[in-house]
Amino acid sequence: MNYESLLADRTRLMSANAIREILKVVSKPGVISLAGGIPSEQSFPMDLMANLTEEVLSEYGTHAFQYDLTEGFMPLREQLALLLAQRGIDVPAEDICVTTGSQGVLDGIAKLMISKGDKIALEAPTYLGALSAFNPYEPEYIRMDMDDEGLVPESLEYTLQNHRVKFIYLVPTFQNPTGRTLTLERRRAVVQIIQKYDALLIEDDPYSALRYRGEAVPPIKTLAPDHVIYVSTLSKVFAPGLRIGFFAAPEFIRQWLVLGKQGVDLHTSTFNQALAARYLAGGHLEHHLPRIIDLYRPKQEAMSRSIEKRLPTEFTCSPSDGGMFLWVSGPEGMDMEVLYHRCVDKGVAFVPGKFFFTRENEGAQTMRLNYTMADENTIDLALQRMASAIAEM
Amino acid sequence: MNYESLLADRTRLMSANAIREILKVVSKPGVISLAGGIPSEQSFPMDLMANLTEEVLSEYGTHAFQYDLTEGFMPLREQLALLLAQRGIDVPAEDICVTTGSQGVLDGIAKLMISKGDKIALEAPTYLGALSAFNPYEPEYIRMDMDDEGLVPESLEYTLQNHRVKFIYLVPTFQNPTGRTLTLERRRAVVQIIQKYDALLIEDDPYSALRYRGEAVPPIKTLAPDHVIYVSTLSKVFAPGLRIGFFAAPEFIRQWLVLGKQGVDLHTSTFNQALAARYLAGGHLEHHLPRIIDLYRPKQEAMSRSIEKRLPTEFTCSPSDGGMFLWVSGPEGMDMEVLYHRCVDKGVAFVPGKFFFTRENEGAQTMRLNYTMADENTIDLALQRMASAIAEM
Repeated sequence: MNYESLLADRTRLMSANAIREILKVVSKPGVISLAGGIPSEQSFPMDLMANLTEEVLSEYGTHAFQYDLTEGFMPLREQLALLLAQRGIDVPAEDICVTTGSQGVLDGIAKLMISKGDKIALEAPTYLGALSAFNPYEPEYIRMDMDDEGLVPESLEYTLQNHRVKFIYLVPTFQNPTGRTLTLERRRAVVQIIQKYDALLIEDDPYSALRYRGEAVPPIKTLAPDHVIYVSTLSKVFAPGLRIGFFAAPEFIRQWLVLGKQGVDLHTSTFNQALAARYLAGGHLEHHLPRIIDLYRPKQEAMSRSIEKRLPTEFTCSPSDGGMFLWVSGPEGMDMEVLYHRCVDKGVAFVPGKFFFTRENEGAQTMRLNYTMADENTIDLALQRMASAIAEM
Repeated sequence: MNYESLLADRTRLMSANAIREILKVVSKPGVISLAGGIPSEQSFPMDLMANLTEEVLSEYGTHAFQYDLTEGFMPLREQLALLLAQRGIDVPAEDICVTTGSQGVLDGIAKLMISKGDKIALEAPTYLGALSAFNPYEPEYIRMDMDDEGLVPESLEYTLQNHRVKFIYLVPTFQNPTGRTLTLERRRAVVQIIQKYDALLIEDDPYSALRYRGEAVPPIKTLAPDHVIYVSTLSKVFAPGLRIGFFAAPEFIRQWLVLGKQGVDLHTSTFNQALAARYLAGGHLEHHLPRIIDLYRPKQEAMSRSIEKRLPTEFTCSPSDGGMFLWVSGPEGMDMEVLYHRCVDKGVAFVPGKFFFTRENEGAQTMRLNYTMADENTIDLALQRMASAIAEM
């Protein structure tokens, strides 16, 4: 039968995730991949898992396997309230909802707010998973300038002056793909602007716990609670396969998001939420997080050193104090997608930066390098291979 | 700030799930609830859970906690292929995808196919969770007649003659809310019609394993594989809190559904999929399913007896050989929502049938009774209370 005629209008925007397509090439034997965006399996607290599952079985019994509230498993929400308080966000457990990964929040927000043609303001570059969530609802993207200190506030103000946007989407701390962090001074400027224009901001914060040096910067949510939906996840500090995301939002929006989630998946796995509740309640995150940081910090430092040592001086790297990525810009006019194919032949892969931009022909000279998956020596070998591919161009 | 102005056009259709609202009333102490739609916690294989989690940890290790394919965890998909083969559906594991509950498939199908105003053909009454999934995408519903043998084929043919529908949505076996099953003869007729009109059918089959008597009827998917998306779940035969749904669809549709799911939740919990894989691979479903059936069959029989014994003769019950619900029709002109409020005062709750119809003023004289949650004596007491409320009307 003719299935194509059954597609909705929106599907023309549901294109394949470019990174996933690129990762397929990468699985060739011998290729060192700096292309991924996933936590190292060494970061999972595997030594705790058997105990945590036992605790869940004895503490919650059948409750952990039954349908539960769409809002989330209350013992986890209580723990998340404590976690958010540590980040300076003071909200009661009732105001926090659990979703199926932070992807679930992004889809929910898009479903709730985006009518065809509505405008969304984004950093350029931005997180690709957010675009996957937003695209099917047919928004128009307004890209905003970034530099090494994150979003440029003047660019935000210009955007809000000239466009009525449904919301602003930011990853202000250790951004994917750039690793950049919006400075405190700029956060204050951003807050003034969103309050002035009465705009809603989505603060996506998967990475702030992965800080390798320097002082924590407060979430924007702490500075403008009514104007911010704060989105986070346990994927980077517990285990991504459990699919536990969460958000704190103004009540009106939260109630609508819950209503939307009823239709999407009813609720997130009770069992996994119970595991996460025991992980947090047992104080395990506090003990385990330093181990994750000790795992990643040397990898990041090794990559920074190798970039500086191995790549030509025209290649610069955005400074970054945490997260999972470094962002490298080559000389103006260079197309990193061309380099990508040469690098794969040399046995190293990365993601060309252009894929993270919503405007065509932007970011051709950039690339995203992930450092969580390879060890320090392998990272250096990867950069040597890349340097040799660059030398041949 | 003015959050309301941020809502998308579609949200006017995202109304609260009426059953959930009704269930809130029901949690009053002393009220016997026949209103729910959830499995008994006694049906969960709790004696296996500790072993299954140990097996997952030793068999799959970190893999069970890592990001995985959007399509699903391959060891589970292999087991699901064997399960579907038992139901007569011969598809390779690659053609089966795992979703976050069967709700996840329904949302995915709606997102993929429904543009505003597109027509969807449904049984009257139909499953409320499907409406929650479809509503946000702004379809127009075409209701089709049912009787005790399920969908009336002539009503389907009339619908397809007069409307271009995107798809037909059916729960053909032990339907929620009616408990009815489409007979084999009618399945054949339905297949002829959908082939004649080249229409796509969604066969939602959460309950067929819960058969208390009689012979299994083959899924419609077995009769017209190219015209049917088969949707099922482990929620009723393993544990609903794990949120494991799945589907088998023609390749073109499957690839689009996977693309859509990337944006919604990336993938379903790896750990829970691994648990389900071990449950099926270990042969536990075969041993455990008879226990679930032995748990529910006497409850269903008790409810049938009590309906006949306690309610006035104008109250009739649709025959049903399985599932979780019985469907009762009162005398023409009676409004079961009025009875509902009187029943709650007497200490018994159910769901008025009107909520399962998409056309207003249909089904006022019907009600859905769930029998999985109460024991036999409690069920009889509930029907006595209902009879007393009826007598006072």
